[in-house]
Amino acid sequence: MSFRARHLLGIEHIAPDEITTLLDLAETYVDLNRSTDKHDNALQGLTQINMFFENSTRTQASFELAGKRLGADVMNMHMQASSVKKGETLIDTALTLNAMHPDLLVVRHPDSGAVNLLAQKVNCAVLNAGDGRHEHPTQALLDALTIRRAKGRLHRLTVAICGDIAHSRVARSNIWLLGKMENRVRLVGPPTLMPSGAADWGVEVYDDMKEGLKDADVVMMLRLQKERMDGAFIPSEREYFHRYGLDAAKLDNAKEDAIVMHPGPMNRGVEIDGTIADDINRSVIQDQVEMGVAVRMAAMKLLADNLKAARSAPKEVAV
Amino acid sequence: MSFRARHLLGIEHIAPDEITTLLDLAETYVDLNRSTDKHDNALQGLTQINMFFENSTRTQASFELAGKRLGADVMNMHMQASSVKKGETLIDTALTLNAMHPDLLVVRHPDSGAVNLLAQKVNCAVLNAGDGRHEHPTQALLDALTIRRAKGRLHRLTVAICGDIAHSRVARSNIWLLGKMENRVRLVGPPTLMPSGAADWGVEVYDDMKEGLKDADVVMMLRLQKERMDGAFIPSEREYFHRYGLDAAKLDNAKEDAIVMHPGPMNRGVEIDGTIADDINRSVIQDQVEMGVAVRMAAMKLLADNLKAARSAPKEVAV
Amino acid sequence: MSFRARHLLGIEHIAPDEITTLLDLAETYVDLNRSTDKHDNALQGLTQINMFFENSTRTQASFELAGKRLGADVMNMHMQASSVKKGETLIDTALTLNAMHPDLLVVRHPDSGAVNLLAQKVNCAVLNAGDGRHEHPTQALLDALTIRRAKGRLHRLTVAICGDIAHSRVARSNIWLLGKMENRVRLVGPPTLMPSGAADWGVEVYDDMKEGLKDADVVMMLRLQKERMDGAFIPSEREYFHRYGLDAAKLDNAKEDAIVMHPGPMNRGVEIDGTIADDINRSVIQDQVEMGVAVRMAAMKLLADNLKAARSAPKEVAV
Repeated sequence: MSFRARHLLGIEHIAPDEITTLLDLAETYVDLNRSTDKHDNALQGLTQINMFFENSTRTQASFELAGKRLGADVMNMHMQASSVKKGETLIDTALTLNAMHPDLLVVRHPDSGAVNLLAQKVNCAVLNAGDGRHEHPTQALLDALTIRRAKGRLHRLTVAICGDIAHSRVARSNIWLLGKMENRVRLVGPPTLMPSGAADWGVEVYDDMKEGLKDADVVMMLRLQKERMDGAFIPSEREYFHRYGLDAAKLDNAKEDAIVMHPGPMNRGVEIDGTIADDINRSVIQDQVEMGVAVRMAAMKLLADNLKAARSAPKEVAV
Repeated sequence: MSFRARHLLGIEHIAPDEITTLLDLAETYVDLNRSTDKHDNALQGLTQINMFFENSTRTQASFELAGKRLGADVMNMHMQASSVKKGETLIDTALTLNAMHPDLLVVRHPDSGAVNLLAQKVNCAVLNAGDGRHEHPTQALLDALTIRRAKGRLHRLTVAICGDIAHSRVARSNIWLLGKMENRVRLVGPPTLMPSGAADWGVEVYDDMKEGLKDADVVMMLRLQKERMDGAFIPSEREYFHRYGLDAAKLDNAKEDAIVMHPGPMNRGVEIDGTIADDINRSVIQDQVEMGVAVRMAAMKLLADNLKAARSAPKEVAV
Repeated sequence: MSFRARHLLGIEHIAPDEITTLLDLAETYVDLNRSTDKHDNALQGLTQINMFFENSTRTQASFELAGKRLGADVMNMHMQASSVKKGETLIDTALTLNAMHPDLLVVRHPDSGAVNLLAQKVNCAVLNAGDGRHEHPTQALLDALTIRRAKGRLHRLTVAICGDIAHSRVARSNIWLLGKMENRVRLVGPPTLMPSGAADWGVEVYDDMKEGLKDADVVMMLRLQKERMDGAFIPSEREYFHRYGLDAAKLDNAKEDAIVMHPGPMNRGVEIDGTIADDINRSVIQDQVEMGVAVRMAAMKLLADNLKAARSAPKEVAV
């Protein structure tokens, strides 16, 4: 088993054994992060740049801590996507950064595909920290680690992903990952927030929470992405909570030992009842945050190893 | 003598011998900061998060340098208090951060009591970097170190705290500290900026600068906190300076060797005459800034020691 | 040969042998930055503060990486120039920072001369990261290193600096540096963007690109500094590109092996044709960015060495 990718742009092109390798390594970082001396030298002497074209306090913090704990030199760059014209100028930005010789480049961007484009222009390893509605691979990996630790396995589980599927890169990355690991994935949400092609994704689609949650092992709630809804129908929060918010009655349809997840930040009383979010017997929401740092440490360690190996490999002679 | 606190939330619950322990340690950091190699390993491997819900360039810088010089991994998080709903969501933020396993959490918040609330929800040591009108303990400690170095002692001094007492957490923390160390504290300011209960605080209250400064060893000017005055009577700056601004004539009432302090940033010509602020024979305003870094290093070192001791202590077995 | 300066405020007062010393050292950092372990201990234990009163993502990033790779404790401070009143309060800010004992202070400020003023008030080494229309010395040094590597020498070259000369600190620093190293400098641009005294600077002045570029070894395009033009005549971008933008036809007048430079960020289609900017046979624009980090590492290393030497020198006894 090994991790072979040069970049971490999405879950789509990562193989199951790579996922397992990464999660296994992340387990060791969970232990490190719980200890008092949280320092490791895995990224010593390497430069990590976090380039966020979209604000994300918690994801950026998670990547920043991950890099610092592994000894990297970490630099945050706050980019204003509005002032960066699309296409050409994103590439100028990429080339400029590349000339400063980062080793790891963590990118969040509001446009789907922007991170992949950028990765083609640089010599370092690129980690997608979320691009538009496309992918958010480290979120799916931290969800996977959380599930594996809570349920003891990451296969043959019934996972209900609920809410605003249409605007969610978290849903997309999780569908890829859970599918690759041979789980049964259900999407539950109002038809207006369900992508039109969802039925072809190898998942089951529901618009009723009771049916969708029936006998689920994992109930994964999504955040209402109001900022990405430009023009789409937005239900009232009260109506939304009534039909699709997770409360005790709806959760009763899932298995007795079902766990409850949310990528955060939560809109309490909209997507999820506060009491359930805080129920330490059901909710693993804080565990997700904890696993986030560990998974990002593992991803950066594995990509850095591949980068070092590629750099020390004998170059082919151009003829 | 020892420092026993788990958090540094305020001066109110710190004992005199704890204050002395902290100031003594801070003296060693004054020397370190004046040397060329300013690095120490006291916080090596630990994670410090600075979470500022209110802008404060200088206090944040002081904590950031303090942590970096002691070898911590330091992360700044700029939070918008306006977007964080009170109560529940502040707690969500605290729980999220806690799941990332910081060791030291430095918090500034516009609401009095918010930092205490937050400290109840996390496993790490919390340092209050100023909360509303409540406390600003590291400011009082740096003032104390400045006074002790300038006057040779920190007891039996007459200290006049002057200006906008009502809105000042600096005044509150200083009143606690100077009282504990057996000094004579006077509050001097216009009645509209004097808290109603001040007479019960074990201090003397004056509304005339000449009387209030008479024979004072220390004249501590406060910043006019216009941003916290919502609706209160604000005198014109000219009138304020005439009656309550520190100038040579008013300072003549204090002892000949009285020192002049200000927590910064100064409104020159409002609270204090620029000539006095710059008089190196009277003003210790720059010393206060210097002592600030040293005191914060000492506070974080002592809290980290207590944290490590608590973690390695044998746990009681739950029955 | 040695580097004797205490500060790096401008190229004006740096001697040719100091420039050569700095560029030679920078060459070693180019190699370091291209390696996988980019860490050096030259600034270990020192504190670097980046104080930017004007936004500059790329210059600040370059200084930040330079300091971190050399092992300094680096702190960024984002200052709002608008809220800092001129003169007195800039000095208060300087004195406050100085009391925190930085060793290296990197300053960008919108006012010409502000960095020199600040340098008089502090005990540390100050690096000017651009002040108003005055100087931007590290930009000239990185341009010099780029030219020296591309052309094999840094003397007896014909360098055409083109565009908005009037508002450009980059032009000023480059004119100083290229002149000191005995190159032939031409300024090319519209009369409205040419400073009135330019004819006295020991340069040739042109308002026609074809004439100005004739037989040039180096074509250095400048950014249109619209934000500094308050009230000056601004040509339409289309008209500007037609007459002064670098395109293939205009470049044909330069030497066949002439290199093309731009300090970035580029306004493609205004100052320069995108095809030329991307032509790896002509454009050294990415090299400039790369050299920027190396030159800043060298400057900080040399200033830190001088600072350490000054601190350990026996003090003269004041009588």
